[in-house]
Amino acid sequence: MSVIMSRRDLDFVLFEWLDTAELLQHKPFDEHTPETVASALDLAEQLSTDLFAPHNRLGDLQEPSFDGTTVHVVPEAGVALKAFAEAGFVAAALPEAVGGMQVPASVFSAALSWFHAANAGTGAYALLTTAAANLIAHHGDSRLRETFVPPMLDGHFFGTMALSEPQAGSSLADITTRAEPQDDGSYRVFGRKMWISGGDHELSDNIVHLVLARTPGAPAGTRGISLFLVPKYLVAEDGSRGERNDVTLAGINHKMGYRGTVNTAPVFGDGAFQPGGLPGAVGYLIGSEGSGLPIMFTMMNEARIGVGLGATALATTGYLKSLAYARERLQGRPVGTGPGSPQVPLVEHPDIRRMLLAQKAYAEGALALVLYAARLVDDAAAHPDRADEANAVLGLLTPIVKSWPSMWGPRANDLAIQILGGAGYTRDHDIEQHYRDNRLNPIHEGTHGIQALDLLGRKVLMDQGRALGLLGARMADTVQRAQTAGGQAAEYAALLAPRVARLGEVTKGLAGLDDPAAVTADASLYLDAAGHIVVAWLWLDQLLAVADKDGPFYDGKRSAAAYFFRRELPTVDPLLNILAASDRVTLDLDASVL
Amino acid sequence: MSVIMSRRDLDFVLFEWLDTAELLQHKPFDEHTPETVASALDLAEQLSTDLFAPHNRLGDLQEPSFDGTTVHVVPEAGVALKAFAEAGFVAAALPEAVGGMQVPASVFSAALSWFHAANAGTGAYALLTTAAANLIAHHGDSRLRETFVPPMLDGHFFGTMALSEPQAGSSLADITTRAEPQDDGSYRVFGRKMWISGGDHELSDNIVHLVLARTPGAPAGTRGISLFLVPKYLVAEDGSRGERNDVTLAGINHKMGYRGTVNTAPVFGDGAFQPGGLPGAVGYLIGSEGSGLPIMFTMMNEARIGVGLGATALATTGYLKSLAYARERLQGRPVGTGPGSPQVPLVEHPDIRRMLLAQKAYAEGALALVLYAARLVDDAAAHPDRADEANAVLGLLTPIVKSWPSMWGPRANDLAIQILGGAGYTRDHDIEQHYRDNRLNPIHEGTHGIQALDLLGRKVLMDQGRALGLLGARMADTVQRAQTAGGQAAEYAALLAPRVARLGEVTKGLAGLDDPAAVTADASLYLDAAGHIVVAWLWLDQLLAVADKDGPFYDGKRSAAAYFFRRELPTVDPLLNILAASDRVTLDLDASVL
Repeated sequence: MSVIMSRRDLDFVLFEWLDTAELLQHKPFDEHTPETVASALDLAEQLSTDLFAPHNRLGDLQEPSFDGTTVHVVPEAGVALKAFAEAGFVAAALPEAVGGMQVPASVFSAALSWFHAANAGTGAYALLTTAAANLIAHHGDSRLRETFVPPMLDGHFFGTMALSEPQAGSSLADITTRAEPQDDGSYRVFGRKMWISGGDHELSDNIVHLVLARTPGAPAGTRGISLFLVPKYLVAEDGSRGERNDVTLAGINHKMGYRGTVNTAPVFGDGAFQPGGLPGAVGYLIGSEGSGLPIMFTMMNEARIGVGLGATALATTGYLKSLAYARERLQGRPVGTGPGSPQVPLVEHPDIRRMLLAQKAYAEGALALVLYAARLVDDAAAHPDRADEANAVLGLLTPIVKSWPSMWGPRANDLAIQILGGAGYTRDHDIEQHYRDNRLNPIHEGTHGIQALDLLGRKVLMDQGRALGLLGARMADTVQRAQTAGGQAAEYAALLAPRVARLGEVTKGLAGLDDPAAVTADASLYLDAAGHIVVAWLWLDQLLAVADKDGPFYDGKRSAAAYFFRRELPTVDPLLNILAASDRVTLDLDASVL
Repeated sequence: MSVIMSRRDLDFVLFEWLDTAELLQHKPFDEHTPETVASALDLAEQLSTDLFAPHNRLGDLQEPSFDGTTVHVVPEAGVALKAFAEAGFVAAALPEAVGGMQVPASVFSAALSWFHAANAGTGAYALLTTAAANLIAHHGDSRLRETFVPPMLDGHFFGTMALSEPQAGSSLADITTRAEPQDDGSYRVFGRKMWISGGDHELSDNIVHLVLARTPGAPAGTRGISLFLVPKYLVAEDGSRGERNDVTLAGINHKMGYRGTVNTAPVFGDGAFQPGGLPGAVGYLIGSEGSGLPIMFTMMNEARIGVGLGATALATTGYLKSLAYARERLQGRPVGTGPGSPQVPLVEHPDIRRMLLAQKAYAEGALALVLYAARLVDDAAAHPDRADEANAVLGLLTPIVKSWPSMWGPRANDLAIQILGGAGYTRDHDIEQHYRDNRLNPIHEGTHGIQALDLLGRKVLMDQGRALGLLGARMADTVQRAQTAGGQAAEYAALLAPRVARLGEVTKGLAGLDDPAAVTADASLYLDAAGHIVVAWLWLDQLLAVADKDGPFYDGKRSAAAYFFRRELPTVDPLLNILAASDRVTLDLDASVL
């Protein structure tokens, strides 16, 4: 059995729970069948196993280096990424009109999970490229689409998202990179970016940067931000490589994990090159001036689901590896057994089983969450009449989809290390790397705190709480079906329903505060509580799909659900109590006493 | 202000809370004064700042290497350790009779915290040597004491604890290293050890291994284990270096963190050397045959307090560094402020203050716990009439002192990373290293699960719960004084008392189960809940020492206590509910469904 991902669980989620077969009967997905989906998952398993997993540790040990001119990345990454693109994975989820295959987002995410789990560092180049191509396909003009999308789909051009700046990490309103319009309709871009993954390397023929910048006279704040496509090399009319654009590096960052992905500090227009004999990096506007952030957000939502998926994948592979170790490794004997008896496998100890079951509950709960969100994307496309509802729920869930796996995925990896003990702390096993890699996920694409503000400060409260009402209706439907089903499902419905109601009350209480700082002071706790309640709901919904099916796989689902409802869901109560009490200990804290 | 440790807090704990001045009036500590204690802390701050902190990152980047013959460690470590010994820190806590200074354990721990925080990797060699010298001083015969203790105190010999073996990590009952008695009273030792820190290097003239092994015909299990002193080089009558003993390395382990400390797989008696022309490594029995584990436990208790101290120190330095960053770094603006206004320091955001206050509550709570335990060691020495009570409480607290800081110290470091965001994830800042280093603490010197079994399976239930009763009496005294004090203290006493009572009820319920596996199945949860309750108690007790004193330092204590009582203590309720319900989800789990 693979220790990268569980194909059995992916099949369960897609076909026994989310009813992907039904989805494939609708445009734009109706050229796919359960068999073609199975082939895509087979291919993802094979490529990730054969080409991504084998150099996961190598990419960590030989992290990218920068000699002042060139970034060096292990060549195995280039081989793997070429195969990824050639197999059609960059193109998979894109519209047919730009050369894509219109694979549903839920199916595509399931396939991508293999690459995340096998090698997060190398996988990131592919995911950035896929997301960038998707943005250009949807928002670029025809010239940009025709020039840049095809070579991205076939793996010759890679993409980046260049948002943050040294003085503006989480605070995009404060970016200062500027773009000056030229007579030919292009722009010249000047400024410095920071934390840009994949910002330079020799893995591809060209690199397509999506850059946020301000145009002259643009208003302060986010409304003055525009989006530009800035390639490392200009592209000639015939598609051949043109002049070197003025994009260089101030340096690269050396990280704790995710080391296979080069993280850079790019510089635009500092005069190292002079394309066309003029200063500045040549950039092309995407959309209209001032619409940069809304457009980027369509890509960031996708990227945020991608972060949740990556955290989930690392949680899953850590679980599978620690499970395999616990079944194999002999250590100690059950409590009350004499010293003469033989040592037993670790998995015989209840504390080890606790740590395995917790990981399973986190990893499979996170997978359900991420693929449910991806399915909302698909539903909006397949059922235009339901698109508005699906998009509202998706928007509300996005910060949770990004953050919950990013919070609990590293916790799962922490437990996996603990199961292996000293061995888990060494680089002889993969798990310590997964733990380090996974620690990036609560930081990038909007920190945990930023997601919390997005959830409570925007999504929950906007439109008079409409999205929360729609989500609540979905939860109520599950609860009602669980009550009808009886047994374990009804028992858990009785644990879930009062917490959902309590979350609603707490939300009303917060919305009623007249001090905006007080509303969001504990937004992170709100995010954590809402995340656990949402995942509990999806565990209950999965359990309804398990129904009375027989066999160890379904018994495993029942046990993990039991764990989540009895041991995880109750941890939201202290969080909700703090929120209900509007405890001001952090809000009113005078920082000078710290 | 130092970002290594807070001298102000150490002074508060020692002199305003634990009343060290009173302690120093009693033998064996009465040659010390508050002024000499202050000098020792000054010296620890100076040495750790000047010689340990500067190569903390270097020791991580240039981790020890083994060329098949020799282990290479950065030379800066040797310089620092020589200065540590020359300043008297190895000798500080030892009895005068063996050349020690009889510094109280609580004072010594406060001093050591500086070295842990400045450089955990280099500090470990010193701590192992101190602990080994202490064991030999107390349990070795006069020849071993005279031969080995003085050169350990002056830093020429270093020490190790050689317990684990490849097939027996946490399960010491299963070690197979054997020791064969010789006519001259010495032994010859044969076997392989694993996870031995400081197991070989060139930092000292000799290495003194304390080795657990079985003698011929010894009974199975832990009762058949004896303790041996096995030096790397034999020592001639005149104290000069003698023959090379047959101690070599099978290899070294490459870890995620704590990289400055070489971790080795030593081999005893495989024939690489033949001291005296005979096979086997020469070893000297400490204590009597079969008493190895009880003797080692006296050292392991000290080592376990040391682990708690190390986790605390890393939590503290991470807190101080993230606080300094949050005060400096401008990022974003308060909720509801327009984009035209200037960016504010991170610390102005409530979510950042939450993460700082949580770290403060963990770090200072852990420091109180560790130094309280060390003070019990001192009380037993200074007040023989109270020694029995103090030792019983100390024994009960030891697994908590080891585990609670090891659980929450890494969480504190996790929050410190989050405050720095992307910067915290890079190796440009210390915090990611502290996070990696700290992750070892729940593993070594007995894993979290082993500590949990020690607490619930042994310490709580033995002697009809006597130790728990004694601890309860101390807690009740604090609660009563808090009720009398009124105000904030009385409010928190009202939160603490019912949880203490509930823990007692849960304990009785577990003790009444007739299935030993069921009693300890969730011992880890019991450890976590008991740990939070104990730390809450010590926060309340600290608050009584704060009383109505004015100033930011005391206000900081009040805020951290408020945080702990309102936000941390209530998290024990779900844990106690699980324990009270005797939930069997992990105990009864059939591992084949995982």
